[in-house]
Amino acid sequence: MTPLAHTALAEMTTPALLLDSTVLERNCEAMARRAARHGVALRPHLKTSKSAEVARLATRGHSGAITVSTVAEADYFARHGFLDLTYAVGIGAGKIDALHRIQRTHGARITLLADRVEAVRAAAERARAIGARFSLLIEVDTGGGRGGIAPDDDAALLAMAGEVQRSGVLSLAGVLTHAGHSYHAEGLAAIRAIAEAERAGAVRAAECLRAAGFTVDTVSVGATPTAVCAERLDGVTEMRPGVYTFFDLDQAARGICTMDDIALSVLATVIGHNPRSRRVLIDAGALALSKDESAAEFRDGLGFGLVCPVDGTAPLAGLRVAELHQEHGLIACDGNSNGSDGDSDSAMFEALPIGSRVRILPHHACMTAAPYDRYHVVRGTGASVHAVWGKAHGWHVAGPGA
Amino acid sequence: MTPLAHTALAEMTTPALLLDSTVLERNCEAMARRAARHGVALRPHLKTSKSAEVARLATRGHSGAITVSTVAEADYFARHGFLDLTYAVGIGAGKIDALHRIQRTHGARITLLADRVEAVRAAAERARAIGARFSLLIEVDTGGGRGGIAPDDDAALLAMAGEVQRSGVLSLAGVLTHAGHSYHAEGLAAIRAIAEAERAGAVRAAECLRAAGFTVDTVSVGATPTAVCAERLDGVTEMRPGVYTFFDLDQAARGICTMDDIALSVLATVIGHNPRSRRVLIDAGALALSKDESAAEFRDGLGFGLVCPVDGTAPLAGLRVAELHQEHGLIACDGNSNGSDGDSDSAMFEALPIGSRVRILPHHACMTAAPYDRYHVVRGTGASVHAVWGKAHGWHVAGPGA
Repeated sequence: MTPLAHTALAEMTTPALLLDSTVLERNCEAMARRAARHGVALRPHLKTSKSAEVARLATRGHSGAITVSTVAEADYFARHGFLDLTYAVGIGAGKIDALHRIQRTHGARITLLADRVEAVRAAAERARAIGARFSLLIEVDTGGGRGGIAPDDDAALLAMAGEVQRSGVLSLAGVLTHAGHSYHAEGLAAIRAIAEAERAGAVRAAECLRAAGFTVDTVSVGATPTAVCAERLDGVTEMRPGVYTFFDLDQAARGICTMDDIALSVLATVIGHNPRSRRVLIDAGALALSKDESAAEFRDGLGFGLVCPVDGTAPLAGLRVAELHQEHGLIACDGNSNGSDGDSDSAMFEALPIGSRVRILPHHACMTAAPYDRYHVVRGTGASVHAVWGKAHGWHVAGPGA
Repeated sequence: MTPLAHTALAEMTTPALLLDSTVLERNCEAMARRAARHGVALRPHLKTSKSAEVARLATRGHSGAITVSTVAEADYFARHGFLDLTYAVGIGAGKIDALHRIQRTHGARITLLADRVEAVRAAAERARAIGARFSLLIEVDTGGGRGGIAPDDDAALLAMAGEVQRSGVLSLAGVLTHAGHSYHAEGLAAIRAIAEAERAGAVRAAECLRAAGFTVDTVSVGATPTAVCAERLDGVTEMRPGVYTFFDLDQAARGICTMDDIALSVLATVIGHNPRSRRVLIDAGALALSKDESAAEFRDGLGFGLVCPVDGTAPLAGLRVAELHQEHGLIACDGNSNGSDGDSDSAMFEALPIGSRVRILPHHACMTAAPYDRYHVVRGTGASVHAVWGKAHGWHVAGPGA
């Protein structure tokens, strides 16, 4: 799929999702080395990119096992040859038929997740009815307060494992936890502490199950902040970070990465100047950028994203996407609120003439990338697209021709 | 496209976008009557639904003319027989080739929008180079501060009209304004005042052009709040509201509609209970619902959406979507912050058993609907889907087979 390869960025239809493959490869290699150093497998979460090309880079030197968060992703990646999939969202019986079809059609092996006996029972009942079999991980809550059993709730852990074993159609793979709250922690020391709690909780749950005679092959942890900051992963078998492939302002704002590590941006065209409201208009709005402002928790002045020149060099000082409408983004410069900074306005209008292109760095790469159906791949400050990569989006499983 | 018609809601794959066609038809009829009463044409904005079936209902009794905000929408609607299209985002020369192809392939007539002489010049140059012709509206800013010339800036208005006339490939259609700031106004009196400023500004700009000898056929206004609240539209020729087709919590929070007028919801499945964090987990997260919280400006307690029973009756009292992760939504009930309301928690867990389905009412229908590729259409409290409607999404023009 390369109809638009070699197109100059200055001539591209916008908005478009740009991916710098030089940065992407560096990010993938760094995480692969980190996992190897800790002696754990890397099962990258592909919910960020939803792309087979990214998955190939992210699993290089590892087993090819990946993590997904929708049935559509499971289907897409199985069609692209990724056959060892963990579907890391609590399973509902309504997903079993589609996941079974994916296993059968492609010879994939999908591992499910659950934290309640009722959920295991319902999934097993449906699997039995259609002749499906799955591995299953027990979800452990190591502080995020989303899904999962408390790591010291032995009774609940053992009840779950017993239910899985009795089902006849599910087999216990192990335990999984996700320290999602590490996204809201400031400072590397705080994230290091969360990483250790994530590790210790998952290992404790695994030990509880092993002590009762259950086999626990998988002890799975991971979020990008904890994967980057963890000092040790003793007892863990795999990590599942995702956003590290692309990084974003949210990660950069806390020092998990640098601005140079951000591989994803949105290419937009300047479509207007409004001197009265002191805004530059671009054709990338709330849908093209997302309204996510996660990094505002850690750093001021980012608006809905930072504005870089079309060659992808450092953000233009003092500029930010200040407002979003569905298909319009409004760029403002510092000092706009006092209504008197005519010089910086003139400089902004001069730097961003109508018809010029800019790259916007997003707060949260997963949110920004999701609605697009392709990446336009660039290399460093190169002025043209060297490849177009397809991706999954939405929740529905594509038809046989897709 | 009806593979999933007649599916019971209780058996549907989730997340899914539900559209109540009874409410949709009522909303469309009410706006068509309103336009007729004011003696103006209705050119509904289809950026909300991106659906040909919705466009057919929204243009019933009117000319079939519609408004769009992306090239992908223009292409989709032209392929579905809607041939009078206003592309209501400031034009960039980079869009001219694609819009020309759409005009030529389908015999469509696309009207462009601009507010700067440079933009007109660049669009005209590209149109001339490829033999394209377009109508063009001059954008007027009646208070939103996004795009547009001030309605009393005669020099700028006349310079624009002159540039269009001299281009040889563009023809002046008239003026257009969008009172987007009406989305942030509280109280019907304030919105009525914005509606009158929107009308008066557009008419003033038109009169300025006519006084200089230009023909101005179109005087276009409209946003749902002002279209609903306007007391008179003298001098206006058309209105372009969009979100009224679906309505949402943002409109209901200010009395622009009632909760019963909301036609759009997201069907989700309960996938977990976390008694420690006092949350019910559903499989509709930030991508399925959007992180939009617009209505929070006007009303507390809405979280990221309200929770309705699967039959679409009134929201369950005290419940809201309190947190969003990429594919997880977390429902909480009132009193959750003091950590002591065990009774309401029990009632919540009992009302929402694992495996059950709920409908979530969104803050902003445009944001929520955008990433989906289809609607599952229901009627009132009916328990099954009676049709599946396709829709456009994203920005790229689909291939010939799509």
